[in-house]
Amino acid sequence: MDKSTKCALCPQKAVVHLKYFNRKLCKQHFSELTQDRIRKNISKNELVDKNNRVAVAVSGGKDSTTLLYSLANFAEKFPIELVGITIDEGIEGYRSESLKVVEKNYKKLGIEYKILRYENEVGKPMDEIVKKDQRLPCSYCGVFRRDLLNKAALEVDADKIATGHNLDDEVQSILMNYIRGDFSRLARTGTKTAADTGFVQRIKPLSVVPEKEIALYAMLNNFEVYWGECPYSHEAFRSEIRDTLNRWEERSPGTKYQIYNGAENLKELLKGAIGGAILFECEICGTPSPSVICKSCEMKKEVR
Amino acid sequence: MDKSTKCALCPQKAVVHLKYFNRKLCKQHFSELTQDRIRKNISKNELVDKNNRVAVAVSGGKDSTTLLYSLANFAEKFPIELVGITIDEGIEGYRSESLKVVEKNYKKLGIEYKILRYENEVGKPMDEIVKKDQRLPCSYCGVFRRDLLNKAALEVDADKIATGHNLDDEVQSILMNYIRGDFSRLARTGTKTAADTGFVQRIKPLSVVPEKEIALYAMLNNFEVYWGECPYSHEAFRSEIRDTLNRWEERSPGTKYQIYNGAENLKELLKGAIGGAILFECEICGTPSPSVICKSCEMKKEVR
Repeated sequence: MDKSTKCALCPQKAVVHLKYFNRKLCKQHFSELTQDRIRKNISKNELVDKNNRVAVAVSGGKDSTTLLYSLANFAEKFPIELVGITIDEGIEGYRSESLKVVEKNYKKLGIEYKILRYENEVGKPMDEIVKKDQRLPCSYCGVFRRDLLNKAALEVDADKIATGHNLDDEVQSILMNYIRGDFSRLARTGTKTAADTGFVQRIKPLSVVPEKEIALYAMLNNFEVYWGECPYSHEAFRSEIRDTLNRWEERSPGTKYQIYNGAENLKELLKGAIGGAILFECEICGTPSPSVICKSCEMKKEVR
Repeated sequence: MDKSTKCALCPQKAVVHLKYFNRKLCKQHFSELTQDRIRKNISKNELVDKNNRVAVAVSGGKDSTTLLYSLANFAEKFPIELVGITIDEGIEGYRSESLKVVEKNYKKLGIEYKILRYENEVGKPMDEIVKKDQRLPCSYCGVFRRDLLNKAALEVDADKIATGHNLDDEVQSILMNYIRGDFSRLARTGTKTAADTGFVQRIKPLSVVPEKEIALYAMLNNFEVYWGECPYSHEAFRSEIRDTLNRWEERSPGTKYQIYNGAENLKELLKGAIGGAILFECEICGTPSPSVICKSCEMKKEVR
């Protein structure tokens, strides 16, 4: 066991111990490693092409703020255009606060942006929806947010939507899909979605960085981040899976990467075996949908 | 919540509550359900063909004893021949005790049997092997047992080897393969192995019955079972996975079946995508092997 508190690469004090490769790093080397991982993820998986217009989905939290700054940094060397897209679900005291942070960051980086609000798009803010409905708020909110991110990306004429999903988010989803046996969802998602789904392609540049490290990276770089949590958040299954994964990782450092890489391989193996869902165009809003009315329009009817 | 202590199907007292389909059953209906599941697993998955000679791998524990009686029962209605195969690893106070139980059951059912012993086949009993070697005993023992079961089955001229793996064993293996990303192993194993591997085909008639229910079934039917545990057993990873699965099942009854069914579907999807390993014949013993000397012969050299 390495008892030193020094960086493995220089004489500076270590700020982090990456157990999965048994290495302690100082602020500078940790930041470089993180940037490097994100950059390699983008290039190796061809997440963007030259001259792409990339819509960055920003909520103000640690992940999406790190994403915004990382892509701004990436855009200095590779010709892509960034435009921010933000969804205002209408949650007083939570989203109202984070929006201030989001706008500060957009302005600081000089990035144009678009905000879509549930109040206008769905017809009601979440604060109203939760009052009336028995369903779990997340079940609505996930569908609406997804739908509006796509709408916002189309409105700003983007080629891609970049989201701040980190390694932990991805591995949780992978394990949930394994448990549910949902290999068709597994094949559809991941670091980038297929280009031909009818939706704006989604990319996840942070998918190779563990959640804890993104939090540390955001703090070390003094990003202005909103740390609050959604008051309606209630994802019992995902919480259970999160705990399990953290326990496994604690016992066997590297487990999360192992699961992530395994799923990437599985996706390759499944290519061709899983056909794309046959898509209609939603009769109300025109977006691609597995049924004649899309889930979002159906739910909008429910909540109005 | 159903507070009754009565069987859902008759006025008898319930002996079990199957939470995953919210049903309480009496001894008779629970036994019928269990038999039915095993029978359906055999027929639906074509685990045996008419006039097959089936080698039943029996250790004397609850699973393999239940397997032996279940197949004896099955053989009354469907023309298959049974022959017992048992491996004596040479573990004093454990296998020496269970062997007495095994032979009693073979004799009670009038089933011919063959016992192969590490002492003769490997050259040393496990009690000797563990004294000398640093490796975890299970890593050897698993390889030797697997090899000797195949050898015993060939010697008794069997078409199939039936093993007592239950639902929990299977789901643990599935989850371990997901975590390791070992989809080639996942595709090779399951309720029955491929017929063309060069090894005697293995079948698992109990793969659809949860471990707890097999224990209960064995007790209710007064099977003579050896309940001891191997003194060398040490499978840290599997234990962790077992605990995780039991926790998930407790929170969401049915999770084990869900994972099991998902993996069966995945195996279908992977058909064709994963090629069989190119096999040599082991230069020493002649069994199929991915290398010129098989793992078992290599390990035999190590321990001798």
